[in-house]
Amino acid sequence: MTRITLITGGARSGKSRLAEAETLALCRARQRPLYIATAEPGDAEMTARIAEHRARRGLEWDDLHAPLDLALALDASDGRGPRLVDCLTLWLSNLMLGGHDIDAATNALLDALSCQRDPVVIVTNEVGLGIVPDNALARAFRDAAGFLNQRVAGAADRVALVACGLPLCLKGAPLTQAKDQP
Amino acid sequence: MTRITLITGGARSGKSRLAEAETLALCRARQRPLYIATAEPGDAEMTARIAEHRARRGLEWDDLHAPLDLALALDASDGRGPRLVDCLTLWLSNLMLGGHDIDAATNALLDALSCQRDPVVIVTNEVGLGIVPDNALARAFRDAAGFLNQRVAGAADRVALVACGLPLCLKGAPLTQAKDQP
Amino acid sequence: MTRITLITGGARSGKSRLAEAETLALCRARQRPLYIATAEPGDAEMTARIAEHRARRGLEWDDLHAPLDLALALDASDGRGPRLVDCLTLWLSNLMLGGHDIDAATNALLDALSCQRDPVVIVTNEVGLGIVPDNALARAFRDAAGFLNQRVAGAADRVALVACGLPLCLKGAPLTQAKDQP
Repeated sequence: MTRITLITGGARSGKSRLAEAETLALCRARQRPLYIATAEPGDAEMTARIAEHRARRGLEWDDLHAPLDLALALDASDGRGPRLVDCLTLWLSNLMLGGHDIDAATNALLDALSCQRDPVVIVTNEVGLGIVPDNALARAFRDAAGFLNQRVAGAADRVALVACGLPLCLKGAPLTQAKDQP
Repeated sequence: MTRITLITGGARSGKSRLAEAETLALCRARQRPLYIATAEPGDAEMTARIAEHRARRGLEWDDLHAPLDLALALDASDGRGPRLVDCLTLWLSNLMLGGHDIDAATNALLDALSCQRDPVVIVTNEVGLGIVPDNALARAFRDAAGFLNQRVAGAADRVALVACGLPLCLKGAPLTQAKDQP
Repeated sequence: MTRITLITGGARSGKSRLAEAETLALCRARQRPLYIATAEPGDAEMTARIAEHRARRGLEWDDLHAPLDLALALDASDGRGPRLVDCLTLWLSNLMLGGHDIDAATNALLDALSCQRDPVVIVTNEVGLGIVPDNALARAFRDAAGFLNQRVAGAADRVALVACGLPLCLKGAPLTQAKDQP
């Protein structure tokens, strides 16, 4: 059985859409999917993107906001059905901006993932395939994002890399591919 | 039958070379391939790259310049044989710089693609796998490029992701892999 | 038999870890793997990364420092067992910073690779999947890196693209996948 699915890819590659389709496909009769958002609606761009994602998902989803304590959000929501975490990269960004201990938070997340009974679909981003960034903070962020992705992928049953809205299977069973492209 | 092929990848990943090989492989006896270029020879770097691509392709290709109206170029050239469009990303850049309506242009392109009788091979770029760019225009461009790639991939029969000159199959039949590496 | 393996991917994607595992798997009884480092310990970040890689590899590895003449390092070490070259991208950077002839150096490398009897595992980076860099030197570097990767991939028996610590097979046999994730 697939408990933990990790979906990675570049910006606007169609990761969230595929992750939503996967989460819905994991719901049994009468289960409502839960969307666990890590984004902080800090600026106009992010607020617009959150609103767009919400409009696309529609009314069948419940929402939970967990910018920092993902482990708690997962433990608290286990038993109610499939969850979608969108996304790891913004969670990492929140942790770094807040001066939190990344290793400790990652360990807590992996501990939580290891004991979930209901499925979890996690969205993350590939940020390390461009030219080395000029500034040290951006380099530190892409290093931390790469390590985090490796650790969560190690704990996942399925991992897919998305490009052009289409998944490549990195680990485990292939995704149930979304039928209707944007 | 494969009508629409999309070939994506990073800068200098070997996309154009593979796309040329695919287009040639689709030509029947006595057909000449048509190269539909979207690049504007605006600066020295771009002019040099256009000249280099042209030299590599050789004399068997015909050329058409379509920096903005790709739909028209496709409709006008349908019936004469396989076409190579190189590339979607420069086309998008031309549209954005000229203040054109991206959605309308994309819809026109998809309409044209849906009724081509001769094969079309399209080259595009992955631009969303680095660190989030500092400036808003670059972010808007990579968002628009990601969406465009998703829409064209949805309309394509075959999609391949190229790295190190080698294709990974994202959708449909694998590419006829180019035999001679650079 | 696999003589030349190329492992590519983004920053912190787990390339080096997989390359180390592959190199060890290629060692026969009583062979010690040789680590051929191209990095110059020029600044604090690089020095820390070199130290971290060395600590992870452990005492079973021998080390050779070859910031410029990789062909010589390979020829000189052939016959002693499997070698790991980490990485091509830093080697290219050293060549460009030193004003060396990239084509000549690449030709020498390919000549050397073509006559190795013992296996070589080579790590490189994908740097061309972000937004086009603002500065001309960064653009020239990513162009050169893309061309170099294409040429070495053409000469390799196996090529893998790594994301989230997991390999996708681009050419030849799949990697012996590393069992223990970070």
